[in-house]
Amino acid sequence: MPDKSKSIVDYTHEESHSRRGFLRKAAFAAIAGGTLAACSDSEAQKAIASAGLAGKPPAPSPVPAINAAEAMDKMHEAGIKAFPAKTAGKGGQLLPPRLENGVKVFELTAKKIQWETAPGQMVEAWAYNDQVPGPQLRVREGDRVKVILHNKLEQSTAIHFHGLELPNHVDGVPFITQPPVKPGETYTYEFTIPEGNHGSHMYHSHHNSATQVGLGLLGAFIVVPRNPSAIERADVDYTLVLNDGAHGYTFNGKSFPATEPIVAKLGQKLRIRFMNEGMMIHPMHLHGMHMTIITKDGWPVPAPWRCDTLNVAPGERWDVIVNCKNPGTWAFHCHILPHAESEHGMFGMVTAVIVT
Amino acid sequence: MPDKSKSIVDYTHEESHSRRGFLRKAAFAAIAGGTLAACSDSEAQKAIASAGLAGKPPAPSPVPAINAAEAMDKMHEAGIKAFPAKTAGKGGQLLPPRLENGVKVFELTAKKIQWETAPGQMVEAWAYNDQVPGPQLRVREGDRVKVILHNKLEQSTAIHFHGLELPNHVDGVPFITQPPVKPGETYTYEFTIPEGNHGSHMYHSHHNSATQVGLGLLGAFIVVPRNPSAIERADVDYTLVLNDGAHGYTFNGKSFPATEPIVAKLGQKLRIRFMNEGMMIHPMHLHGMHMTIITKDGWPVPAPWRCDTLNVAPGERWDVIVNCKNPGTWAFHCHILPHAESEHGMFGMVTAVIVT
Amino acid sequence: MPDKSKSIVDYTHEESHSRRGFLRKAAFAAIAGGTLAACSDSEAQKAIASAGLAGKPPAPSPVPAINAAEAMDKMHEAGIKAFPAKTAGKGGQLLPPRLENGVKVFELTAKKIQWETAPGQMVEAWAYNDQVPGPQLRVREGDRVKVILHNKLEQSTAIHFHGLELPNHVDGVPFITQPPVKPGETYTYEFTIPEGNHGSHMYHSHHNSATQVGLGLLGAFIVVPRNPSAIERADVDYTLVLNDGAHGYTFNGKSFPATEPIVAKLGQKLRIRFMNEGMMIHPMHLHGMHMTIITKDGWPVPAPWRCDTLNVAPGERWDVIVNCKNPGTWAFHCHILPHAESEHGMFGMVTAVIVT
Repeated sequence: MPDKSKSIVDYTHEESHSRRGFLRKAAFAAIAGGTLAACSDSEAQKAIASAGLAGKPPAPSPVPAINAAEAMDKMHEAGIKAFPAKTAGKGGQLLPPRLENGVKVFELTAKKIQWETAPGQMVEAWAYNDQVPGPQLRVREGDRVKVILHNKLEQSTAIHFHGLELPNHVDGVPFITQPPVKPGETYTYEFTIPEGNHGSHMYHSHHNSATQVGLGLLGAFIVVPRNPSAIERADVDYTLVLNDGAHGYTFNGKSFPATEPIVAKLGQKLRIRFMNEGMMIHPMHLHGMHMTIITKDGWPVPAPWRCDTLNVAPGERWDVIVNCKNPGTWAFHCHILPHAESEHGMFGMVTAVIVT
Repeated sequence: MPDKSKSIVDYTHEESHSRRGFLRKAAFAAIAGGTLAACSDSEAQKAIASAGLAGKPPAPSPVPAINAAEAMDKMHEAGIKAFPAKTAGKGGQLLPPRLENGVKVFELTAKKIQWETAPGQMVEAWAYNDQVPGPQLRVREGDRVKVILHNKLEQSTAIHFHGLELPNHVDGVPFITQPPVKPGETYTYEFTIPEGNHGSHMYHSHHNSATQVGLGLLGAFIVVPRNPSAIERADVDYTLVLNDGAHGYTFNGKSFPATEPIVAKLGQKLRIRFMNEGMMIHPMHLHGMHMTIITKDGWPVPAPWRCDTLNVAPGERWDVIVNCKNPGTWAFHCHILPHAESEHGMFGMVTAVIVT
Repeated sequence: MPDKSKSIVDYTHEESHSRRGFLRKAAFAAIAGGTLAACSDSEAQKAIASAGLAGKPPAPSPVPAINAAEAMDKMHEAGIKAFPAKTAGKGGQLLPPRLENGVKVFELTAKKIQWETAPGQMVEAWAYNDQVPGPQLRVREGDRVKVILHNKLEQSTAIHFHGLELPNHVDGVPFITQPPVKPGETYTYEFTIPEGNHGSHMYHSHHNSATQVGLGLLGAFIVVPRNPSAIERADVDYTLVLNDGAHGYTFNGKSFPATEPIVAKLGQKLRIRFMNEGMMIHPMHLHGMHMTIITKDGWPVPAPWRCDTLNVAPGERWDVIVNCKNPGTWAFHCHILPHAESEHGMFGMVTAVIVT
């Protein structure tokens, strides 16, 4: 067991770093206190914006050598202090279906929006229901489901239900299983979730998809089993969609410091559902605690296995359990370091698991 | 179980899309009917060629916004409609050995050829026996094998038998285990296939290999076990070699729409042998049905596991079983989307599993 | 079983290649004899240096076609013949701790140095104790450990113990768990290795890490279990740190032909601890023998599995066992071929497992 005799804010070096210690503690308190609100220090916010802490690493600006270390630290500190930074819009919100004769009906409207990935960082997004990722659809094994797609884009589109083993005519591939859904048109997918096909799946465009998925036409489609196994039951259930397209390196549509911390109480079981909707592989590393892999693409693994770094490739989903036995604020990031940190501080694919 | 009550061609939206519906059905019928011949519509073929649907995504050309969606759909449709498009040459053909005193003898001639990866897309290839991939060599555990290499290239070369645990002197690494085979020379490898070393292996150049393998000096080397286990027995046995070198993104040396569909009957067991001979990792995604992983690099996995997206890295081989329980035409592609689709439609690493 | 009836130097073609055969045999003898000294042929050394056989592939120079094959072979031969080439500095040397009241104390000094990755190839490195990778720290489950970091860099830094489940305050993330360690400062980490947290871990900078780790601030942190399981016991225990940053493609800080051969006796059990400290995924391929995977990130896998090509992502550690049953010099390299070979010969991520 980790040594818990020391407080998480007790570190050897603190006495000689009172100012920084104060800032760090303030930042930590803001986070650990559960408010998760944006830092009130508007200077920090401005530093972030001007440092360009967003989805893509800014080019380092020339600094006189003598002050370079201090200047760099200041930018790094501003990023951390701003976390979790407030931005407009939240992706992946649970969309409650409406019930029609026992059918769960979801309406999705695809349209072009402006999306804020980090404070002040506005990008063009193609989104379902004004969210990146699109709203989370959550149903149960055996459910009858209707997904109504309204296309308000200037391009045709279509939805593929990635991981669901559906009848071919609702597979969502234009010219193979359906016509493309033209601009202005509405298209309906109706199907029954197959027994045994539960788990963490996705929905996304399958037309001009490198562009359309890259711009945000994607979301989580989660099928809850009728009888969840003991290992699958968790106190906190978190879906983490990775992306690396036109919006830079993002977790659930946001870049550090605007990413969302994942909060659990000491002793709780945390389930993280990794989904990669990008074009690159991201080895996800959790500090301080290991992850136990329980499903791959929704399918239970024959025997759960443990790691602290999990390689998640485009199209893959991995569900893991973290037994939150180690209190603190734990960095959680892609370990391809240029996806997570630049000379200006952490950015992109970084968040924290906070065990309170 | 998937809902099979609806026909695979019955989709909600069809009535308002009669022309497109017709084309789609025609395309589907051509495929599902088992002819797998190139589409007779020469206009579609021309559209493909002019759209540059080949191993690499063409740069999108500027189109007036008002017609852009329609123009894009037309290109996408032409690609699908042409599938499977006819091209000259077929890679990976089974090479029957000649028997000499109980030894299975294969002759391979390495030489420079022109290779058609997609309709009209000619590339320079360095090939064994005029094929990319080279011919499939298939032997049995315990067999005595002789591979005679004729080098008609302008460069030296050598063959490494990737995955086979052979005596060092036939390992195929110039200056470590043998001299390079000079232009014009012939070189002979002779060995016994070790017991237990069955499965999906490869042979390829191990001299100036980034260039030589990238240009096509590669092939499948399959060792059939003496006593195949129940799980390994399949109705359809398909070898799928991935590549991403000088020829663009290819499956068995061809780019969509010239890739080969994989056809199985409803209820059949399909075995796919993935082999990556490229320089990038490709997460392979199958629609509509999952894959059960049975071997890694020829070695049985301790417990088979399931997925719909399988990450295949350079040098790796993965054998999977697909229980073909879901009828239809299922897209099957690399899920790094820019390897599979451009603004001009699907290309590169795309094919279909067709369950009839 | 592999055919062992033939000598490893007995190959069909030898008689017609006496000069090359001689060189090859000489090179092999130098290696297999266990001296592992640099080749005495200074011409070969010069050829390497002028060919730029280092961490990055040189651009091929134009050669008249008629002599091109011979010239290419000569460069390839020079690279092989020079292996293992002598360079200044050896990374990852075991650092014996000093004992203070039962605490194992390690001192690490981070500073800028010049590092030779291949003969004549000098690069700037940021190193712990003048080594790339930094010295290997090796402790036991349950040990009390103190790591004293002296920062002699011009930038702040910090150490993260990657894979260790430590109390939050020693996690090494500036502004989250500690202040940055400024230039000229000393910082102390003290902790107890948690029970069960044994295996192959790492330590590296977690401040401006894309730059600092890329330049060499990294090392292996190995925790020996109290009671090693039978499968973990090995005759040879080799740590292999992969990197692909500012120093080019390296194994333990060196590029072929300056990489270190891994030597074992016939019948021995070889354990290789793969650690990826780079920014790319490297599928590691061993010729002639398979690897049995026993741990992932230090955690025993539920059931060992076999392969010859193992995909190692940034931040991951994989421990494998090789049962050295096949005598010879076996190429061992990343199978992303441009990481291992150029027109000028093998370079970068290449070494050999030599079974004597």
